[in-house]
Amino acid sequence: MVPGVKALIFDVFGTLVDWRRSVAREAERRLNACGLSVDGSAFADAWRGEYQGAMEEVRAGRLGFCPLDLLHRRNLDIVLARWGFASTDVPESVRLELNHAWHRLDAWPDVGPALQRLRQDYRLAPCSNGNISLMVDLARHNGWHWDAILGAEVAGDYKPKPVVYRRACEALGLTPQEVMMVAAHSDDLAAAAACGLRTGFVARPEEYGGHRVEDRPLVPVDFVFGAGL
Amino acid sequence: MVPGVKALIFDVFGTLVDWRRSVAREAERRLNACGLSVDGSAFADAWRGEYQGAMEEVRAGRLGFCPLDLLHRRNLDIVLARWGFASTDVPESVRLELNHAWHRLDAWPDVGPALQRLRQDYRLAPCSNGNISLMVDLARHNGWHWDAILGAEVAGDYKPKPVVYRRACEALGLTPQEVMMVAAHSDDLAAAAACGLRTGFVARPEEYGGHRVEDRPLVPVDFVFGAGL
Repeated sequence: MVPGVKALIFDVFGTLVDWRRSVAREAERRLNACGLSVDGSAFADAWRGEYQGAMEEVRAGRLGFCPLDLLHRRNLDIVLARWGFASTDVPESVRLELNHAWHRLDAWPDVGPALQRLRQDYRLAPCSNGNISLMVDLARHNGWHWDAILGAEVAGDYKPKPVVYRRACEALGLTPQEVMMVAAHSDDLAAAAACGLRTGFVARPEEYGGHRVEDRPLVPVDFVFGAGL
Repeated sequence: MVPGVKALIFDVFGTLVDWRRSVAREAERRLNACGLSVDGSAFADAWRGEYQGAMEEVRAGRLGFCPLDLLHRRNLDIVLARWGFASTDVPESVRLELNHAWHRLDAWPDVGPALQRLRQDYRLAPCSNGNISLMVDLARHNGWHWDAILGAEVAGDYKPKPVVYRRACEALGLTPQEVMMVAAHSDDLAAAAACGLRTGFVARPEEYGGHRVEDRPLVPVDFVFGAGL
C-alpha cells in the first residue's frame, strides 16, 4: 500500500459504520413506541448536526473533556426539545436506550472482511471521537478485532486537534510516518497529515443517504482505497 | 463466577505471562552473543528488581508519567552497569533489542484458552503497568483478543494508584462493582478492592522460579481461580 506503514488507524462514524441508517432505524422504532411519529433519517441528521458544536466546546477549552456518550445525550435532549417532545413524551428510560443506539451501529458490508485482511499486515486501531466503551461495543456488534482502542478518550481531546493523532502514534510506539489515518472525510485526513501521518481515503457516498457526497479526497492523500476498504 | 460482573481486567506480568523465563532466555542469548557469560534468571530478577522503584518515582510525582518501556530501559542500563558491563560490552543496538524482550513474553499455557472462553461472557482488557504498545505486542505474540487496552498509560499513573483501576472502569462504561480485577498478586487485588472492584486471584507459583510463592491470596477476594485461569 504505502511503504513503511506499520499501523492503520481508522475514523469510525461514516468511515466504518453507517451511523445514519442505524440511528434512524432505532429513533423511529423507539419514538414510534412512545406514540410519536418521527422521520428517522431527519432525526438522525438533526442529532448528528449537534455533533461538531458539542465537541467544539471541549476543543476550545470551555468544557472539560467528557466522553462522547455524554455529548450525544446532551445533543439528544436538545433535539427532542427542539422537536417539541417533552420529558413526559420521551421518558428517561427511552432516552438512555436511544442514546445507546450509537453503540449498536452497523458496519458497511466491506469493513469486516477488510479488517481481517489488513490485520495480517498492520496493527489496527480506531482513532475516533467515540469513547472507549462505545468502540468496544461497536467492535463486539460487528465482530472486529482491534489491537487497541485509541482516539479521543485516550488523548483527552477531540479530533481534529493534533494531540489525538499524536497520542495514537505514541501509544502504538510508532512515528507518525509509520501510521496511516484512514477516513472518508478530508478534514480528518488533512489534520492527520499536518501531524506527519500517512493518509488513506475511502469514499462513503451513502453516509448522508446520497447527500453531501465526498466521492474523492479534497486534499492530497497517500492512498485511495477502491470501492470500500 | 461472581454475579453482576461484566468485565474482567487482568494484571499481566506474572499473572498472564512468565516474564522471568522469557527475559532470562533473551538476556542469556543476547549477552552471550556479546561474549559475556550471564545467568539469565539472575539477570531477569535483577532487572525486575528495579521495577517498583522506577514506578515509585512516577507515583510519588518526582517524575512525570513515562511509559514502562522507558523505565525498563533505564533499569536495564542500571543493571548492566552494576554487573560491570560498559557501553562497549553491550552496544546500543543490543540494549534496544533486549529491552524489547518485554514485548515478546510467553503466556502461561492456560491463558490463551481461558481468555477465549471468558470472552464469551465478559469484556476483557489488560490492566497492567505495561504501556499500550507493549500490551499490543504481547497480544499479537500470544494470540489474545482484548476488547481494549487499559492500565497505566490510559490512566497516566502506575498501579497500585487508585486512578488506574478507576479509569479502567470508566473507560469500560461500568461501575467498579461490575468489574473484576484478576491478578496473582494480593497487593494489586487489595488496591483494586479499595476502589470497589471485584477481585479474582490466580496462583502462579512458578513466577519467581519457585521462590516467593503466593499460592493463596493474602487478602479477602471474591473469587479464586483453580489451577490456572
